[in-house]
Amino acid sequence: MQDHIFYTPDIEIGTKSYILPEEESKHCIKVLRMDTKDRLTLVDGRGNAFEAAISNPHAKHCEVEIKHIESEVQKRDYRLHIALAPTKLNERTEWFLEKCTEIGIDEITPLLCRHSERKELKTERMMKIIIAAMKQSHKAFLPHLNEMTPLKHLLLNATETQRYICHCGDGSKIPLKSALPHTDTLILIGPEGDFDKEEIELAEQNGFRAASLGESRLRTETAGIVACHTIHLINS
Amino acid sequence: MQDHIFYTPDIEIGTKSYILPEEESKHCIKVLRMDTKDRLTLVDGRGNAFEAAISNPHAKHCEVEIKHIESEVQKRDYRLHIALAPTKLNERTEWFLEKCTEIGIDEITPLLCRHSERKELKTERMMKIIIAAMKQSHKAFLPHLNEMTPLKHLLLNATETQRYICHCGDGSKIPLKSALPHTDTLILIGPEGDFDKEEIELAEQNGFRAASLGESRLRTETAGIVACHTIHLINS
Repeated sequence: MQDHIFYTPDIEIGTKSYILPEEESKHCIKVLRMDTKDRLTLVDGRGNAFEAAISNPHAKHCEVEIKHIESEVQKRDYRLHIALAPTKLNERTEWFLEKCTEIGIDEITPLLCRHSERKELKTERMMKIIIAAMKQSHKAFLPHLNEMTPLKHLLLNATETQRYICHCGDGSKIPLKSALPHTDTLILIGPEGDFDKEEIELAEQNGFRAASLGESRLRTETAGIVACHTIHLINS
Repeated sequence: MQDHIFYTPDIEIGTKSYILPEEESKHCIKVLRMDTKDRLTLVDGRGNAFEAAISNPHAKHCEVEIKHIESEVQKRDYRLHIALAPTKLNERTEWFLEKCTEIGIDEITPLLCRHSERKELKTERMMKIIIAAMKQSHKAFLPHLNEMTPLKHLLLNATETQRYICHCGDGSKIPLKSALPHTDTLILIGPEGDFDKEEIELAEQNGFRAASLGESRLRTETAGIVACHTIHLINS
């Protein structure tokens, strides 16, 4: 990939040229001062990276010529979905989103639990952080961010093959690092006040296994990052 | 450990009572509104946790009675030392410090490299973040934070059994996840502009192996967190 990456979700495979949206054109020509023949990469968020060169350096309608397409960039043979109760401080949730996007994740669900400190989330701002992290880490797949979802709804509708609930309470747990590789996985991370007993029981009744992230007592967002990287390591 | 943890580096093993420093006394009595017989934990940063109860709830000189000592709390059978070139934005380095302290680390060295964006660091502020993270994650060992150190100085003086340099350049690398468990380890993480070729060569001449953290392109602070957690997982 080129150093300059643009997220263009509407670009179609097979197209020979593409006109950047007005905001991106301005950034490309006025801020980055790019010019005719300069190279850049367009990613569609679905795994395709389009290597392109500027053909018309217009500050509002910059046109690029597509030179080459790479498909399924860094495609994994498993899906990772983490559902996490957003932290009281938004910036902690934002760090979780940024770091997991860098490390590699497919789907993120903000979770509404009984002890949730935050019950609403501006997903628009969160999406911007995910897009920036995708570009910064040279990825072509954009993680999917769901709207805030009540825990019970997720428990009853999850379809992933292996499902884990990470909590700090007592009871038998398996280490998350013993999860199966190459397998679609959903991991639940609770709020600052943890899941409550009934929530854990309901999860277990719905095929979720209680899992441990190790001996350390981790903050919510750290637990999310550690869970993501654990699955990444198992599969690498 | 109790929910309320105080860092008291000058407490001595064998002592029956202890008077909290003025600032901590005020926090304990005025902010937390604790009173006689309330329980708290004092940690000395060297692995000892002192379970205590308030005997005199004075707002400036709060006295506690030591009930029980636990030694070598969560002691590991390896030392982990990460040397990382501080990021241009201090908050990214601060997140690295906080997360590694939560996950578990023994020593941190801010590294001065040829491409370092940041050449000075206020270690006092950084120490406050490490202390807060130690307390928050219920640890009794305080990671040691060194002053900013030129890379060459570290390369020539490192004594850890296994030594790795993580870089994004070409050349043969081993995955960090194949490191030996139960072994003192030093890992170098470069600046935003990466280590340069000469730095990598000098490291290799001094017994450092080039290591990879996986396929993903990670920011400096993310690489630091991922390296810390990789060693943690190998040992868990």
